[in-house]
Amino acid sequence: MSATDELLANNETYAGRFGLRALPAAPALKVAIVACMDARLDPARVLGFAEGDAHVIRNAGGVVTDDVIRSLAISQHHLVTDEIIFLHHTQCGMQTFTDEEFAPAGQRPPWPARTFKDLDEDVRDSMRRVLESPFIERKESVRGFVYEVETGRVREVLGR
Amino acid sequence: MSATDELLANNETYAGRFGLRALPAAPALKVAIVACMDARLDPARVLGFAEGDAHVIRNAGGVVTDDVIRSLAISQHHLVTDEIIFLHHTQCGMQTFTDEEFAPAGQRPPWPARTFKDLDEDVRDSMRRVLESPFIERKESVRGFVYEVETGRVREVLGR
Repeated sequence: MSATDELLANNETYAGRFGLRALPAAPALKVAIVACMDARLDPARVLGFAEGDAHVIRNAGGVVTDDVIRSLAISQHHLVTDEIIFLHHTQCGMQTFTDEEFAPAGQRPPWPARTFKDLDEDVRDSMRRVLESPFIERKESVRGFVYEVETGRVREVLGR
Repeated sequence: MSATDELLANNETYAGRFGLRALPAAPALKVAIVACMDARLDPARVLGFAEGDAHVIRNAGGVVTDDVIRSLAISQHHLVTDEIIFLHHTQCGMQTFTDEEFAPAGQRPPWPARTFKDLDEDVRDSMRRVLESPFIERKESVRGFVYEVETGRVREVLGR
């Protein structure tokens, strides 16, 4: 049985107990979270929110690319979120290789891998990129955090 | 109290009960999931997986952009996942406006909004883009699904 089939079978349980009805598309907490795709980090569990509460945007590193700006702009402009949370984490795979070394299938892609060395500095870089973007309309609450995979705790990254 | 502060307070509970230790960075199920950022869709709950199991990549629409190819390439090349799951959903906000109408803060961005009209066709488009990418190394299990926000059920999109 493939992992995909296993996950599909799990969905039977979720659907069988499904009690959510007609949740609105707009997130109840008006928050958009940008997090790393890392398997150890589950934003909903770590921050204790439920279905319907928050947009969750994730990629390798939780870094701010054009695609993240696109998603945040849509989140704010069409679905009225007004707070942004960045969530990086300790022991990130993006700190274990360099952009120069990145060659999947033996070739260098036309886009950068977006690896980083300094975790807190990359969180600050994410905040800066969003604060500088002309397409992000609400910047009153843009905050960055590091999730510690060792303790389950989230700590704020201060300064920009 | 801001929503961000509320979520931070929730993390105290998670950290207080934290029982995970030294999970490896490589996902246990060797799966990468590409899903929409929609608040009603929680991939981990919908597909019943735990911390450590799967990479989760999310953006507006769950569409395949260069950033998604970047994340999937890193997921496979550096963290040895070998199955890909696409998870779109019914009542998606990306079907409620057009790329031409998209003008956050009154300006048209240099990148497309990536809206779509036909849900199943966009799932097929996602699969095709990944299958055609030279940077995705393992394509044996690339499957696409629609999550029904009305029922909690996931249904497979067949064909490419």
